[in-house]
Amino acid sequence: MTGQMKCRKTVRSLGLLAVLCAIGTLPLNAQTLENLSADSAHPENVLTYGMGYEQQRFSTLKQINKKNVKKLVPVWALSMENDSGEQAQPLVMDGVMYVSDAKWTVAIDALSGKQIWRTAVDFDPDTPRVVCCGVSNKGVALYNGMVFRGTLDANMVALDQKTGKEIWKTKVSDWKDGYSITGAPLVANGVLMTGVSGADFGVRGFVDGYDPATGKQLWRRYTTAAPDEKGGDTWTVENAYKTGGASTWLTGSYDPVLDLVYWGTGNAAPWNPNSRRGDSLYAASVIAMRPKTGEIVWHYQFTPNDMFDFDATSEMILGDLKIGGKPRNVLMQLDRNGFAYVLDRANGKLLAANPYGKVNWASHIDMETGRPVETGIAKSLRNGESAEIWPSIIGTKNWAHAAFNPHTGLLYANTLHMSSSYKLDTVAPYKPGMRWLGVKDVKIAFEPDAPHGFMAAIDPMTGIAKWKVPLNDSANWSSMLATAGSLIFTGRHSGEFIALDADTGKTIWQFQTSSGINASPITWSMNGKQYVTVMSGFGGLGKRWVGPSAKNIPQGGSVWTFALAND
Amino acid sequence: MTGQMKCRKTVRSLGLLAVLCAIGTLPLNAQTLENLSADSAHPENVLTYGMGYEQQRFSTLKQINKKNVKKLVPVWALSMENDSGEQAQPLVMDGVMYVSDAKWTVAIDALSGKQIWRTAVDFDPDTPRVVCCGVSNKGVALYNGMVFRGTLDANMVALDQKTGKEIWKTKVSDWKDGYSITGAPLVANGVLMTGVSGADFGVRGFVDGYDPATGKQLWRRYTTAAPDEKGGDTWTVENAYKTGGASTWLTGSYDPVLDLVYWGTGNAAPWNPNSRRGDSLYAASVIAMRPKTGEIVWHYQFTPNDMFDFDATSEMILGDLKIGGKPRNVLMQLDRNGFAYVLDRANGKLLAANPYGKVNWASHIDMETGRPVETGIAKSLRNGESAEIWPSIIGTKNWAHAAFNPHTGLLYANTLHMSSSYKLDTVAPYKPGMRWLGVKDVKIAFEPDAPHGFMAAIDPMTGIAKWKVPLNDSANWSSMLATAGSLIFTGRHSGEFIALDADTGKTIWQFQTSSGINASPITWSMNGKQYVTVMSGFGGLGKRWVGPSAKNIPQGGSVWTFALAND
Repeated sequence: MTGQMKCRKTVRSLGLLAVLCAIGTLPLNAQTLENLSADSAHPENVLTYGMGYEQQRFSTLKQINKKNVKKLVPVWALSMENDSGEQAQPLVMDGVMYVSDAKWTVAIDALSGKQIWRTAVDFDPDTPRVVCCGVSNKGVALYNGMVFRGTLDANMVALDQKTGKEIWKTKVSDWKDGYSITGAPLVANGVLMTGVSGADFGVRGFVDGYDPATGKQLWRRYTTAAPDEKGGDTWTVENAYKTGGASTWLTGSYDPVLDLVYWGTGNAAPWNPNSRRGDSLYAASVIAMRPKTGEIVWHYQFTPNDMFDFDATSEMILGDLKIGGKPRNVLMQLDRNGFAYVLDRANGKLLAANPYGKVNWASHIDMETGRPVETGIAKSLRNGESAEIWPSIIGTKNWAHAAFNPHTGLLYANTLHMSSSYKLDTVAPYKPGMRWLGVKDVKIAFEPDAPHGFMAAIDPMTGIAKWKVPLNDSANWSSMLATAGSLIFTGRHSGEFIALDADTGKTIWQFQTSSGINASPITWSMNGKQYVTVMSGFGGLGKRWVGPSAKNIPQGGSVWTFALAND
Repeated sequence: MTGQMKCRKTVRSLGLLAVLCAIGTLPLNAQTLENLSADSAHPENVLTYGMGYEQQRFSTLKQINKKNVKKLVPVWALSMENDSGEQAQPLVMDGVMYVSDAKWTVAIDALSGKQIWRTAVDFDPDTPRVVCCGVSNKGVALYNGMVFRGTLDANMVALDQKTGKEIWKTKVSDWKDGYSITGAPLVANGVLMTGVSGADFGVRGFVDGYDPATGKQLWRRYTTAAPDEKGGDTWTVENAYKTGGASTWLTGSYDPVLDLVYWGTGNAAPWNPNSRRGDSLYAASVIAMRPKTGEIVWHYQFTPNDMFDFDATSEMILGDLKIGGKPRNVLMQLDRNGFAYVLDRANGKLLAANPYGKVNWASHIDMETGRPVETGIAKSLRNGESAEIWPSIIGTKNWAHAAFNPHTGLLYANTLHMSSSYKLDTVAPYKPGMRWLGVKDVKIAFEPDAPHGFMAAIDPMTGIAKWKVPLNDSANWSSMLATAGSLIFTGRHSGEFIALDADTGKTIWQFQTSSGINASPITWSMNGKQYVTVMSGFGGLGKRWVGPSAKNIPQGGSVWTFALAND
């Protein structure tokens, strides 16, 4: 599938093209756009964040299945030499694995676990002060023989896939203004795209497009609308859009047929809406963009005039659902605001929106207007009173990604069950690079004697769980991986990598890794054998709310690969 | 075997004794001296450094054997949260494992891999400057419900075995004078003993005895003889014994029947012998001591007037050999100087001394006098000329411990094959805490196209290898573990934990751990199931001479436990 002996599509000059064709030695690992588009159809490799542009995190591999998963054992591990936590999803291509964290990019021989190269990320050591929720990195992108990644201090870097040597480095933004990059980049239609973090520091969010070959910026799409732009009238306080948040800290999904990239945007800034008023577009939204230009074709806002920290950055899962007897090409999102959304991904039309956890800030989503109907509790918060909001500012689901099995039509997710109390405060003057919220007395709480979260199989159209496993002492902060072997893989903060029976949610296998797991597992195959890989390394936001089972977990990052034991 | 419902032998006061007996709840993990003495006869637990006072590193467990070792798989791992290297041997008692490194002491549920407690070692961060060969710790001692360990800044600490809380801390020596502690302590006949490191910094070596209950010093046995002591006449330069080296940086073995502790001593200081002259007792020797008093009952000097950095600190393995048809209670040592020694451990009489690697500094050991017969090469070094010495200053074997299988009568060792060239230099004035060698132009080299070392099964009486496996690109720096399952376990710098067929030396199983291995594996059992445990974490002296196979190994410490896969 990869490494074909033909000329590259994208080359830097005609001279180079000639050379490559003449000697007939195209780099084995030069991914084409076709390779990336076909990623989910070729489960032996994992070339994209989300295991396919659709970000379903579903694999058709089924050599490991619910009958034999008890025989799953580690086949190798590799230390990351990093204590700040591991949140990344590895990529695998033709026997080489690419992993990342804030400190390193590493290439590994995928069968033996031997390190091939390790390139240090050169980032300003002061950067962590503008990172809201833990020093981390969620992954890399592969394209055309290069490995692309963002840095904590808001640079984009291209490395040679064979050697790890830097090819180019481009400054995306100034970290001192509160910008950072922790998400994985996306290559779509030949353009390298990245989002940024920083909404809690009052940045103006954006998605950037770069030329993968050179690192030259092609376009910038700000995610807060200026007065002369469509949506500009949703910022009724002058200049509020300039510090309006709407960061873009996770990776968009892509439909190559429609040529639309779906990128989620973060909370509006500051949290206190009185200093911006209006819907604050395009905060807490999904924007459907042309990758070549950054043009917004349509948008949908999940939480207008957000004052809840309800980032809508999480995965926009693309799939096909039969709705009213008709197959529809949809986009599904388990939003942080507690509602499960289904949109027509061609035009953004709302098809369903139902709570998938405890929600008290809105009674429902009006299917006509697509807008949430806020409750008295939300109104009392708006009026300056203290209120206990469900879900909490952390959301019914945070970044840990859901998986979608197209055969069952279900979303598999680690959800959270907590509330937050706070009240609006006077908004301090904006200062670049300083936390800027305009709320006070923030408390985050678990319900007495209730679970901290659930592992759940959720019907996207109804929000109703087919099964739901309570997590009584510590919620999970790992992504889900669904496989055709009727298995769901995920990780526990307490370090166990686990496999669930996809039909019941029952944990039918587990292995205690060396640290806590808060990352995105993958599965891949080589020479006919299926492997599962996950990073272990306690870190990130969830670390703040661990229960007894995760209280005694050491730091220390590593990559783990599993396979069925030899008979 | 442990945790009997009877009163402790050693209690701090009669009042405490009364309480313990009255409520009948002796701490489950209160080891008696009998437990420690019987350690090797009870392979389910590992209570002592060396897996028995004899330090044979042999286990009678054979559930895992050469027929089924291919089914060995990891059952858990735990991060050490430490990047400075792992060299320790874990201890296991009644389902709890105790591990250490320079930074931490950790108790682990041995079956699940869950951390029970983790206690930070409080040591001066400047200490590493007086550590010659890598920041490390080799293990802890258990006795009477306490965990004892040395610290890099030369303190001895007692922790509560249940909680990890410090019970007492005693300053052993001043690290600013060049002292440090990296070895595991020894509890023998009720006395807690420790050695010290620092011979390359011109310390005066010693072994100390402490009251385990209180940390009160009972005695100090200096390992360089003062003028008024036996051996004092072997220092013919005035006051040279005061900075004479002979550090004691590994753990002694113990014969409870003879009540003798056998402790090896390090190189003389400075390396240049002209500033001390004479044999420099008790440097590069073994001393047989009474644990209650520190009295030296006998000694044997392996390298008189050492100028080669030939520490004799390595394990003194106690075993029974049939010599001339008669069973003899012997002490065996694969000395750093290249000779394999067998002594009668009752009186120190030399029974055999033969090279087990390439040696050119001495032609042989005179069996009458027990002294090496130096060659012209050694003499030219003494005369101030540059000379290439075999073995190198690192030795034919460094600290990585050999194992002894009493059934085969063979020693299993990772050996080194390298030379060093240098010449004597003027000796700078001694300065406390400064490296003090008096040699120059030191070069350490491998022989072209020759292995860097071997894994070998060595006949202690002849030095001849029954089998010898060349390590062509990187020598091993891990200890050996021998089992009744005809297996030898050891680790590779490149991270593989491996099992050899004890009969042939062939590697018949391996697993790639997360970092390099330079530690001491153990085996133990619980509920009828056998486990093997080793620490992984690249570090120590050997790291300086890695070949290509170990050049791409990340730092990052962890503990790994293996068992046979479930059918």
